[in-house]
Amino acid sequence: MLDLIAPLVVENTTKIVLLSLDGLGGLPRPETGRSELETARLPNLNALATSAACGLLRHVAPGITPGSGPGHLGLFGYDPVRFQVGRGVLEALGIEFALRAGDVAARGNFCTVDRDGKITDRRAGRLPTDVCVRLTDRLRGISLPGVELQVEPVKEHRFVLVLRGPGLSGRLSETDPQALGKPPLPVKALEAGAAHTAGLVNRFVDEARRLLADEPAGNMVLLRGFDRLPDLPRFPDVYRLRAAAIAAYPMYRGLAKLVGMDVLKTGAAFADEIATLREHRDAYDFFFVHYKDTDKAGEDGDFDGKVAALERFDAALPDILSLAPDVLVITGDHATPSILAAHGWQPVPVLVRSAYCGADPVTAFTERACASGTLGLMPAHHLMPIVMANALRLTKFGA
Amino acid sequence: MLDLIAPLVVENTTKIVLLSLDGLGGLPRPETGRSELETARLPNLNALATSAACGLLRHVAPGITPGSGPGHLGLFGYDPVRFQVGRGVLEALGIEFALRAGDVAARGNFCTVDRDGKITDRRAGRLPTDVCVRLTDRLRGISLPGVELQVEPVKEHRFVLVLRGPGLSGRLSETDPQALGKPPLPVKALEAGAAHTAGLVNRFVDEARRLLADEPAGNMVLLRGFDRLPDLPRFPDVYRLRAAAIAAYPMYRGLAKLVGMDVLKTGAAFADEIATLREHRDAYDFFFVHYKDTDKAGEDGDFDGKVAALERFDAALPDILSLAPDVLVITGDHATPSILAAHGWQPVPVLVRSAYCGADPVTAFTERACASGTLGLMPAHHLMPIVMANALRLTKFGA
Repeated sequence: MLDLIAPLVVENTTKIVLLSLDGLGGLPRPETGRSELETARLPNLNALATSAACGLLRHVAPGITPGSGPGHLGLFGYDPVRFQVGRGVLEALGIEFALRAGDVAARGNFCTVDRDGKITDRRAGRLPTDVCVRLTDRLRGISLPGVELQVEPVKEHRFVLVLRGPGLSGRLSETDPQALGKPPLPVKALEAGAAHTAGLVNRFVDEARRLLADEPAGNMVLLRGFDRLPDLPRFPDVYRLRAAAIAAYPMYRGLAKLVGMDVLKTGAAFADEIATLREHRDAYDFFFVHYKDTDKAGEDGDFDGKVAALERFDAALPDILSLAPDVLVITGDHATPSILAAHGWQPVPVLVRSAYCGADPVTAFTERACASGTLGLMPAHHLMPIVMANALRLTKFGA
Repeated sequence: MLDLIAPLVVENTTKIVLLSLDGLGGLPRPETGRSELETARLPNLNALATSAACGLLRHVAPGITPGSGPGHLGLFGYDPVRFQVGRGVLEALGIEFALRAGDVAARGNFCTVDRDGKITDRRAGRLPTDVCVRLTDRLRGISLPGVELQVEPVKEHRFVLVLRGPGLSGRLSETDPQALGKPPLPVKALEAGAAHTAGLVNRFVDEARRLLADEPAGNMVLLRGFDRLPDLPRFPDVYRLRAAAIAAYPMYRGLAKLVGMDVLKTGAAFADEIATLREHRDAYDFFFVHYKDTDKAGEDGDFDGKVAALERFDAALPDILSLAPDVLVITGDHATPSILAAHGWQPVPVLVRSAYCGADPVTAFTERACASGTLGLMPAHHLMPIVMANALRLTKFGA
């Protein structure tokens, strides 16, 4: 798709705003038979759906539940199956660690092992974050020949390990046996050129075991999701758009940075994000604006909380509409149905509003209503071409 | 798709008529919220939609606006992304130039350059066509070793250059720098075997510069879209159909010929096309009938004109229905929304009527209504297999 689009892109002065409601899609609550979107009072979203083209997005493949990484890459036009980003890289992006090309990142857990080195708790009882900070500090004492090591705390038992140096490979097996009563596994090279890196990581693990030996909980580490920064085509180059990301959460800023968007400084509240959008309106062609509250409530299994988060978003919509973007897109990176209390595989409602979006019979922004929209059920990475077309930024294919 | 279909094709006596309304799809006019199809009075089309299976066709990819070439190739069952046809070839087809296998065709513009050879007008002020005829006549004086040259006027500043001879390649760069104040670029070979052809074209350009030097406007040429006739599987062979094209406009006759259909002689009016259809009914299994008026009005931004063109088509439908084709297909090669005054990327309504088409809830032949049809939103090149199935001309896949 990117290869097809890139040669057709033309410049224009149109403005595009893509609003991503994290975990937007939901499921009916059994008591009422209505989903979060069907329960909430959403006068502004429903009015928009009436004048917009609507549909459903599938981010990865049927039945596949997307993580936040693939979910957003899809929205940005990258096929998330083709452009895979390792967990280590996502974890590093999630704390806004400035990964460089060639770095190898891994997701780390502090775990607890018994005297025989066998795992008794894979998460060390979900260590308090301050203990995590103290233990990562200790791991920073490790030095290995020819590479620079970075160890950064994330949250609770989680940390990020980054190796920086020449000739590193991310094609390494994981140390987590995913079971109790077994010792951590040694790292193995998964490609010919990875033996050197595997040796370094195994030395890091040995040193960590030694340095952490006296801890009652968190006396060992597990490493997984080794990967290097993927070589993604740059969003501003592919689409010839000056593109900015507005997101209060570091993970989403990291994802936007990964594809080459400018990341704008903003506050923690959605009102701050809208103020940032207003302030930079003239300097960019494309804005990715992230709204987190829907996902948070969904993950907590808080149906009413998710309904309230949707209603707060709806109340903020007029402020965004007053900026009169030429193309307004509202969708999400995946479903987070409250009754699942987790990400879900269900397709996610989407609306595209522009002067040329056409009309469909949809008059409500819900999972059920959007199924009858003219956009149909489509892969998320097909959205950007439609957005670009609506912005009159694509020329025709063939004479 | 073609590879899947071809071995399943069986003979039958059923008749198929495919009516292509050029630029069929539209968009709502802001004043009324209704598209051209929704505004027109179309009793015959709506009755057909009620008894047919309906849906929407996407010709190239989401958001991509098809040219007439890719749009029709899709209708004929060829994936237009896989089977790309260069602009030079399409331009030659558009004037019904009898291209042969191995010929290299380019689209030419007469342009104007200053004393330093820098372009001052890429279209030479859109020369009157009679001047174009005179200048192409002059270019016919050029002769090059080992190839036969054909130079044919098209319209205004446009002409076609065809090189005929052994060992030619169409993998050549363009001479148009797409900017004023720069000289035309030399042609470069884009593959190893193209150096000889590049040399010939550069000699042609040098001669053209010399022959046109005294012209006040159009004193130089720009060449682009070099290509050879693509090697397309022949439509009559793939589908085992005696196939005929009925089209008043040369471009569409050229496209039909490109895939191996017989092109029937017909008049300029749609009534003439229907008379031709009636006359040849028994001699063919498949008819592609082209209706141009919808696109013309759309391109002119003439909403009411497009409504009128649709109503004229509707009035002519009973004449076609009286021929009782076993499968009747009505669709278009792309959208031409009047409010865009250009081709659009929007999916195009389609209906398939046969004894076995099934029923759906659609009772109007409009963009919005067809979105709910049982055919769904599908790639245009998936239409022909459905048409063949409805004609009982495909056997089952697997035992």
